[in-house]
Amino acid sequence: MPETTTQPDAAAVIDLLGVLAYGELSAFDRMAHDARMAPNTGLRAALAEKAALEMGHYRKLVDRIADLGADPQLAMAPFVAAVETFHARTEPRTWGEALVKAYVGDGLAADFYREVATYVDEPTRALVDEALADSGNAEFAIREVGVLIAEDPTAASRLSLWGRRLVGEAISQAQHVAAERDALVRLIVGGAGDLAAISGLIDRITGKHVARMKAIGLSQ
Amino acid sequence: MPETTTQPDAAAVIDLLGVLAYGELSAFDRMAHDARMAPNTGLRAALAEKAALEMGHYRKLVDRIADLGADPQLAMAPFVAAVETFHARTEPRTWGEALVKAYVGDGLAADFYREVATYVDEPTRALVDEALADSGNAEFAIREVGVLIAEDPTAASRLSLWGRRLVGEAISQAQHVAAERDALVRLIVGGAGDLAAISGLIDRITGKHVARMKAIGLSQ
Repeated sequence: MPETTTQPDAAAVIDLLGVLAYGELSAFDRMAHDARMAPNTGLRAALAEKAALEMGHYRKLVDRIADLGADPQLAMAPFVAAVETFHARTEPRTWGEALVKAYVGDGLAADFYREVATYVDEPTRALVDEALADSGNAEFAIREVGVLIAEDPTAASRLSLWGRRLVGEAISQAQHVAAERDALVRLIVGGAGDLAAISGLIDRITGKHVARMKAIGLSQ
Repeated sequence: MPETTTQPDAAAVIDLLGVLAYGELSAFDRMAHDARMAPNTGLRAALAEKAALEMGHYRKLVDRIADLGADPQLAMAPFVAAVETFHARTEPRTWGEALVKAYVGDGLAADFYREVATYVDEPTRALVDEALADSGNAEFAIREVGVLIAEDPTAASRLSLWGRRLVGEAISQAQHVAAERDALVRLIVGGAGDLAAISGLIDRITGKHVARMKAIGLSQ
């Protein structure tokens, strides 16, 4: 079988680990903050525990960056603005919005991880798989969003709109990153095969997002 | 040897686990928030990781409450106001204050845990020991406060004052709790032996606090 992909260059792998690491750190920060909106202490603690899990992923990612001989802070730096802009534009105002954001954000990140994990070296891939294994906001968010919609059926359309906004902002910030990080883009294009294959990747991630919205009782 | 202590009643053990659990949850929340004041991403992540550890302790404490047949939310409820008041009155305004708060708060909590752990049943004691084992804000705080004082020696007197304020507010809120929770007070007085022994307990905790301030380069 011909080898169609080239070995990803080291800078691109560092970029990838850097954006993932900063994503985890900021997800921790935002989910910890959003947990305050919970209607009771039990639900507040449940979201706080999800937030805490992100720091375990963060640790693995930055340790890998250091193992590869790079500085984790420098690796994360190019992505801080895009990630923070995403969060600033998608600050939840209600508990329902916080739940949907945790669910959609976690889901999109996991899908992206899974896609790109196949393009990188084996230790990095193993790390990504491990980070995915103890994610698990889905069940919790599906249950609690279900409770909110049962209490107030009009919440469904508001939260559906919110879900679309989250994806729109995520795509917008991903485009900013892509415009500036050539090596990272080459890694993904090289991994996918060619530019045409990128649209396949985007289709798969979008398709999973639609299924995810349906699973939580919201329309895409 | 005569048995001088009576078996602590179940309500008091639930109270104890409840106040510890809510303390962990709120410590998570506050440290996660305070991490934003860090001067760089590495230090921000370091405090975020300490915050995340608190949720592991929280989980063990609420699981124990549930094992004892009580509702964790109800067990925590009587202590929410005192703990939140403590935090509202000791909101750090600088990275140095955040570090000292994490260090002093963690240390006082650990000392209190160790003292009362000897008064409770064996599974609860084992749990408390386990929760203490992976605490570890001390080394990090000592190093980073040292960095701040080296950069600006006037920080030492400001942070010393801050340390005194933290302890003062902690004592003030502990008194509010004691005034309202008879069973918990009986557990601690019964465990210590008598009211006179309580002053020994307070002396030991105060003495350790003084040593801790010294270790971090601050005066009591």
